[in-house]
Amino acid sequence: MVETVKKAKILTEALPYIQRFSGKIVVVKYGGSAMTNPELQRQVICDLALMKQVGMLPVVVHGGGKAISGWMEKLGMEPKFHNGLRITDAPAMELTEMVLAGKVNKELVQLFVQSGTKSVGLSGKDAGLLLAEKKQIKGVDLGFVGTVKTVNIEVVKLLLDQGYLPVIAPIGADVDGNSLNLNADEAASAIACALGAEKLVFLTDVDGVLQDPEDPSTLCSSLNRKDALAGMEEGWISGGMIPKIQMCLQALEQGVGQVHMLNGTWDHALLLEIFTDQGIGTMIKEDK
Amino acid sequence: MVETVKKAKILTEALPYIQRFSGKIVVVKYGGSAMTNPELQRQVICDLALMKQVGMLPVVVHGGGKAISGWMEKLGMEPKFHNGLRITDAPAMELTEMVLAGKVNKELVQLFVQSGTKSVGLSGKDAGLLLAEKKQIKGVDLGFVGTVKTVNIEVVKLLLDQGYLPVIAPIGADVDGNSLNLNADEAASAIACALGAEKLVFLTDVDGVLQDPEDPSTLCSSLNRKDALAGMEEGWISGGMIPKIQMCLQALEQGVGQVHMLNGTWDHALLLEIFTDQGIGTMIKEDK
Amino acid sequence: MVETVKKAKILTEALPYIQRFSGKIVVVKYGGSAMTNPELQRQVICDLALMKQVGMLPVVVHGGGKAISGWMEKLGMEPKFHNGLRITDAPAMELTEMVLAGKVNKELVQLFVQSGTKSVGLSGKDAGLLLAEKKQIKGVDLGFVGTVKTVNIEVVKLLLDQGYLPVIAPIGADVDGNSLNLNADEAASAIACALGAEKLVFLTDVDGVLQDPEDPSTLCSSLNRKDALAGMEEGWISGGMIPKIQMCLQALEQGVGQVHMLNGTWDHALLLEIFTDQGIGTMIKEDK
Amino acid sequence: MVETVKKAKILTEALPYIQRFSGKIVVVKYGGSAMTNPELQRQVICDLALMKQVGMLPVVVHGGGKAISGWMEKLGMEPKFHNGLRITDAPAMELTEMVLAGKVNKELVQLFVQSGTKSVGLSGKDAGLLLAEKKQIKGVDLGFVGTVKTVNIEVVKLLLDQGYLPVIAPIGADVDGNSLNLNADEAASAIACALGAEKLVFLTDVDGVLQDPEDPSTLCSSLNRKDALAGMEEGWISGGMIPKIQMCLQALEQGVGQVHMLNGTWDHALLLEIFTDQGIGTMIKEDK
Amino acid sequence: MVETVKKAKILTEALPYIQRFSGKIVVVKYGGSAMTNPELQRQVICDLALMKQVGMLPVVVHGGGKAISGWMEKLGMEPKFHNGLRITDAPAMELTEMVLAGKVNKELVQLFVQSGTKSVGLSGKDAGLLLAEKKQIKGVDLGFVGTVKTVNIEVVKLLLDQGYLPVIAPIGADVDGNSLNLNADEAASAIACALGAEKLVFLTDVDGVLQDPEDPSTLCSSLNRKDALAGMEEGWISGGMIPKIQMCLQALEQGVGQVHMLNGTWDHALLLEIFTDQGIGTMIKEDK
Amino acid sequence: MVETVKKAKILTEALPYIQRFSGKIVVVKYGGSAMTNPELQRQVICDLALMKQVGMLPVVVHGGGKAISGWMEKLGMEPKFHNGLRITDAPAMELTEMVLAGKVNKELVQLFVQSGTKSVGLSGKDAGLLLAEKKQIKGVDLGFVGTVKTVNIEVVKLLLDQGYLPVIAPIGADVDGNSLNLNADEAASAIACALGAEKLVFLTDVDGVLQDPEDPSTLCSSLNRKDALAGMEEGWISGGMIPKIQMCLQALEQGVGQVHMLNGTWDHALLLEIFTDQGIGTMIKEDK
Repeated sequence: MVETVKKAKILTEALPYIQRFSGKIVVVKYGGSAMTNPELQRQVICDLALMKQVGMLPVVVHGGGKAISGWMEKLGMEPKFHNGLRITDAPAMELTEMVLAGKVNKELVQLFVQSGTKSVGLSGKDAGLLLAEKKQIKGVDLGFVGTVKTVNIEVVKLLLDQGYLPVIAPIGADVDGNSLNLNADEAASAIACALGAEKLVFLTDVDGVLQDPEDPSTLCSSLNRKDALAGMEEGWISGGMIPKIQMCLQALEQGVGQVHMLNGTWDHALLLEIFTDQGIGTMIKEDK
Repeated sequence: MVETVKKAKILTEALPYIQRFSGKIVVVKYGGSAMTNPELQRQVICDLALMKQVGMLPVVVHGGGKAISGWMEKLGMEPKFHNGLRITDAPAMELTEMVLAGKVNKELVQLFVQSGTKSVGLSGKDAGLLLAEKKQIKGVDLGFVGTVKTVNIEVVKLLLDQGYLPVIAPIGADVDGNSLNLNADEAASAIACALGAEKLVFLTDVDGVLQDPEDPSTLCSSLNRKDALAGMEEGWISGGMIPKIQMCLQALEQGVGQVHMLNGTWDHALLLEIFTDQGIGTMIKEDK
Repeated sequence: MVETVKKAKILTEALPYIQRFSGKIVVVKYGGSAMTNPELQRQVICDLALMKQVGMLPVVVHGGGKAISGWMEKLGMEPKFHNGLRITDAPAMELTEMVLAGKVNKELVQLFVQSGTKSVGLSGKDAGLLLAEKKQIKGVDLGFVGTVKTVNIEVVKLLLDQGYLPVIAPIGADVDGNSLNLNADEAASAIACALGAEKLVFLTDVDGVLQDPEDPSTLCSSLNRKDALAGMEEGWISGGMIPKIQMCLQALEQGVGQVHMLNGTWDHALLLEIFTDQGIGTMIKEDK
Repeated sequence: MVETVKKAKILTEALPYIQRFSGKIVVVKYGGSAMTNPELQRQVICDLALMKQVGMLPVVVHGGGKAISGWMEKLGMEPKFHNGLRITDAPAMELTEMVLAGKVNKELVQLFVQSGTKSVGLSGKDAGLLLAEKKQIKGVDLGFVGTVKTVNIEVVKLLLDQGYLPVIAPIGADVDGNSLNLNADEAASAIACALGAEKLVFLTDVDGVLQDPEDPSTLCSSLNRKDALAGMEEGWISGGMIPKIQMCLQALEQGVGQVHMLNGTWDHALLLEIFTDQGIGTMIKEDK
Repeated sequence: MVETVKKAKILTEALPYIQRFSGKIVVVKYGGSAMTNPELQRQVICDLALMKQVGMLPVVVHGGGKAISGWMEKLGMEPKFHNGLRITDAPAMELTEMVLAGKVNKELVQLFVQSGTKSVGLSGKDAGLLLAEKKQIKGVDLGFVGTVKTVNIEVVKLLLDQGYLPVIAPIGADVDGNSLNLNADEAASAIACALGAEKLVFLTDVDGVLQDPEDPSTLCSSLNRKDALAGMEEGWISGGMIPKIQMCLQALEQGVGQVHMLNGTWDHALLLEIFTDQGIGTMIKEDK
Repeated sequence: MVETVKKAKILTEALPYIQRFSGKIVVVKYGGSAMTNPELQRQVICDLALMKQVGMLPVVVHGGGKAISGWMEKLGMEPKFHNGLRITDAPAMELTEMVLAGKVNKELVQLFVQSGTKSVGLSGKDAGLLLAEKKQIKGVDLGFVGTVKTVNIEVVKLLLDQGYLPVIAPIGADVDGNSLNLNADEAASAIACALGAEKLVFLTDVDGVLQDPEDPSTLCSSLNRKDALAGMEEGWISGGMIPKIQMCLQALEQGVGQVHMLNGTWDHALLLEIFTDQGIGTMIKEDK
């Protein structure tokens, strides 16, 4: 009984956090280990179901690189990359779409439905959600790799209004109807901007922004635009972190309230970030 | 950090309970020690605010006997009772209404508002909510003590629909406009019936129904109609418990889903009853 | 029969006035003799019920000074004033709230309900309607006397939309939840501004603005801002009338259409002011 | 001033009548002298505008026999009747429709609009409101005289919902699109039934049902079904009154609350019938 | 069967045109031979019914000059004109209104209803749609000829929203309630402006704007503001075409998307103009 | 021009058919050659887009057997069948879901979107649309082949209400979340029943029901329940046609208006069936 009362106390302690974000849209880019480790996946689904139930409006944009690579292997196709971008020829594109929109997406939807959460899976083709164009990089033919041109957000708003949790596969189509493989971070960011989301959360395998990349204890729990620009100039934000930070700053500029980088290998990382004051990753926001 | 993860686990464990009662109306008769003890009161407010936030639709009907007695004393008026019913002459009625609708009701509303919960206080006079008539008992003039005749529930539904938590003082008016002092249990029950509430909870100072009144370990955690009728026939439900049980059975008959008797002196009694399987009081329901 | 036809003629003569104010919000500060004299009170209730029925949207903010003083006397508490402001210590505040929100407010609601008018009583605590702070006057501790800081008008709009006549007691709460005694004129004015009311009517015991305070025949039936400022400069608006006029001008500035000062001791004063061209009090409006 | 207060008293006396019929549909067959006498017409328009403004939902179905006859004369056409039914050949029908739908109907609408009342004129052709068929009488060819077959009430409900006063000309169309001349009493009755009107009022030139047709003092102010049937059997309801009474009884059967026969030559006859207890004509209703 | 498949192909070819104008308001001034020739009329009704069914929102404003002249003749009244404007004395006005609002308007409505299209006929008097004033021309008394002052478009919007096709007779009323005869082109233009229509179509007996009035092959299928102004300066737009073009330019200025001049003597002229790229008349639009 | 006028005539001839089915739900099972032949596919998409645009509410349930078989071949998996049912082991199920929900479904959605039709793709997992259970056949383990248990139609209704064309892949999930391969005919039928569809159309490679299976000229263009039962008894309905007919009869029983069997290899088969009187396949309906 004492145990149960303790639980009740904890529930009521969450009240102010629940009230603060009630009715707010939270777009979560869901990828990395939190997707491939079943226990972590169970926790993410559970955390998002709870966020939905207590009144937040989560939207999930998922990756699926490992599943794609697995299927390419089965088919004897060789994954090729250029600077981290998957070179996607026509057969690879066909497979990528099948895996993302037909397998990963529907598995996630099914997990939500079984957790008692009304959920609908979409690809960027549905209702013309993500109109894209081929990504042009000098000297390399990336194939069917795209970048988002226009977001037609109507169907996502409709589903949110009616109590559904939308789960979105990062597949776009160009004006001729060709499928294009989109970067999930970019798709999530574009959708968060189109929704004017309160929060955009990148659930990945890194802790966030470290002042000294070698030392986890130097994690910045909060970073505003000025800090971020300084970090890039001073060099402690470098390498692959630079385009990520630039995407975050762009999202802030286009009306997203805050952007979070979060290590999904932590238990209940999402809930901790939302329901505690300090959080566990890096929150990036505009200068006051 | 370990502590925080544990909290997150507990939050997610509450999910099925939250989902089960989401959108359901819960009428709580709030009285006894849970009202006079400030710490218990803080917990009740907090529990109800949480229930509201996670999607339930609580309605509070409050008592206030101690506060009335206190003010009568200040004014040199002597409380008089007949079989537990407060004999209420005209000056006592005027004071009773002021204390219940002007003091106790507004204090509760204020506590909800400060907890971030939209709340409106009503007496049974507002919008003609509780039309009553004088209670007739042979040989005794109870004065302005009433019994509910008609419930005009429209305003309560309106407030629930618009996200408010209604707090109701058990004051009625007869057709001539005279104020009448109502029994809070009866008022709560009438309101729960008019709303077709999922749950009606009596938060009082007793544990529930005991098979042996001397032995708290004989608490019935669940009781259906057949059991209750048997208990009254066999005599282990007796005395003041009989009219309470009859009111419960009548509420079930008129469409209330379940009735709970709950000891409000337990910490977070409300939350424990709603968010755990066994609960801590007695739940009365129809035979299957 | 001739008499009845005459009545029909009179009804149809009211048509243009009814049409002019149909759907318009009219906030009435209700105080003075019109509140304590039963026959005048009956007329005010009746006038407001009619205004409601023919399509206007009246909101009542009531006083209750006499009732408060009466109860203080019963309790042996001595009313203390400073420049017309009631000094309100903690026990006086508790009593004031009980009398205003528990007695006067509910009596008025009951009279409306019995006249066939859907009505709900509110205090400034309900739904956080009137957030206030202590009034600071140098050298005097007024106790729990407040001034309006923020109006959270949502619940009043909801009730008006749904056909209710809101009756409001001038009690506010500060951020810490302390009850504060508000000036009813100020509360009415703040509510009228928040609603963008067409009319704000002060129903008091004075005729309106007199050019010669000694001579009732010098009543100004209409006054615009320029006139009012002139009156204060020239001195024929003086004394206690100055703050009243300043409040009126401020209300006009914040979007109220017209402000009326009206002697509630006249029979059907409200109806006469609304349903006749000249009216019987003083109407204050912006310069064209 | 005394006069004005008297007016206010009269206005408030009407309150209970206004409340009783607020939101109720009242279909008025408007014909006879009340239509041709300009002063009576002004009063009828005024009475209906007032009824609308105070919350009733009047619908007007008008006649226009005199205007039709006038135009036939101008064109050298000779009015022909058979048992009170106007024999209507093709040229007469064309003229009848022009006069009713193009002249009388629009004049009435214009009067309402000028009185500040939103009003739309319809003929039975608009939105297929009155589908009719030729009236068949053995041995006589009545020409384009019709009887109502189906009422498609949707457009009238829409206009009422949106605050318009519908004014309807009794012209129908058969399945082949031929215009048919309808009896205005019958059209009004059919529309009242389709609307489930609270009241159907025949505003004509007779006082109502008299027990002794020679003696106006024998007016029945109220008549239930049993009385009416008795009257026809006993013979004091006879002649042209019989089909009228039968139409009334049929309307009651099909859900109309009460039917009124009213002498429109009385000043403000409509208002008197609605806003006084006894009324001035005959009210026919079901047996209790 | 081959024939039927060809039909199906044609239907699907219309799809892009249907989609382009779905939900768009199209105001059609309907006059000339297309009104008096029964086969052309049948086609116009059919074309409009189809436009409605596939999602456009047509509004019809009709003329009726021939029908008026015919009736004047029957009554021995002599039509008089001044510069193409019908001089309208009181008896002529009475007749004009009866013919337009009572005969032509209702005939059109009936044709729509029989084609399965929900339709309601209005004159400019209904719901105060067209407030007009007498047209003043120096030295000539045109009688009851008016020009549009204010459009109260509410009722038309309501009917469009609810799926009705409004058919409007060009009759207005002045502030005193006098009927005024309006030019149908002007009424259609005023209504199109008030609705912010996508298209305003003048269905008349001329082909459109010709660069050489003698040579039909010089038809301008499209004309922007600059061209039109040039045409008037250069003289190839002249005579009666000048005020028409000025009205078109004014409509564009007030928010109408495009204005079409169309020869209604062509079979299915309306459908050809809307559902083909080049169209058959002249389309006038703003400079890009 | 003559050609264009002919087109206009054909468009207007379709009007009655369009009106008859406006607002009616039509569920189309889309499979067979009409899916694999690009030109036929283009026509089907076009026909459905037109049906949508003119006011019908089509819902597509698609098959995809050929695409599945193609991918199985690529992966060296051998298709196995039992009585026409595809035996589906775990790897086959994974592939089937990817092909149906990730490839075929999204391709169709994309074609609709490019045709200007708002469309969303769903699998039976989305929003718990198709709850299924394993199909039990004695002596054979069909693997993950399912049969529909419950249809949760809410999301489909929502999309139809908001103007979307839903495209549904016949994948279900059992209570444990396992994917199940559903028969597309059965899924279409279950969805049509849940929607109370006006029409259920099976677009396959057979002409419909033939009285003499050898002779195409014996096609039954219409069949009621009595005929169908007779056909099965008399033996001219036999073999694989029997379960199809039983499914049709069951759909009629559960509220579907009519069921159509249609040969999708005909050009514009869908449009011909809907927009002509006789149609080209077999229509099955209840006895009158």
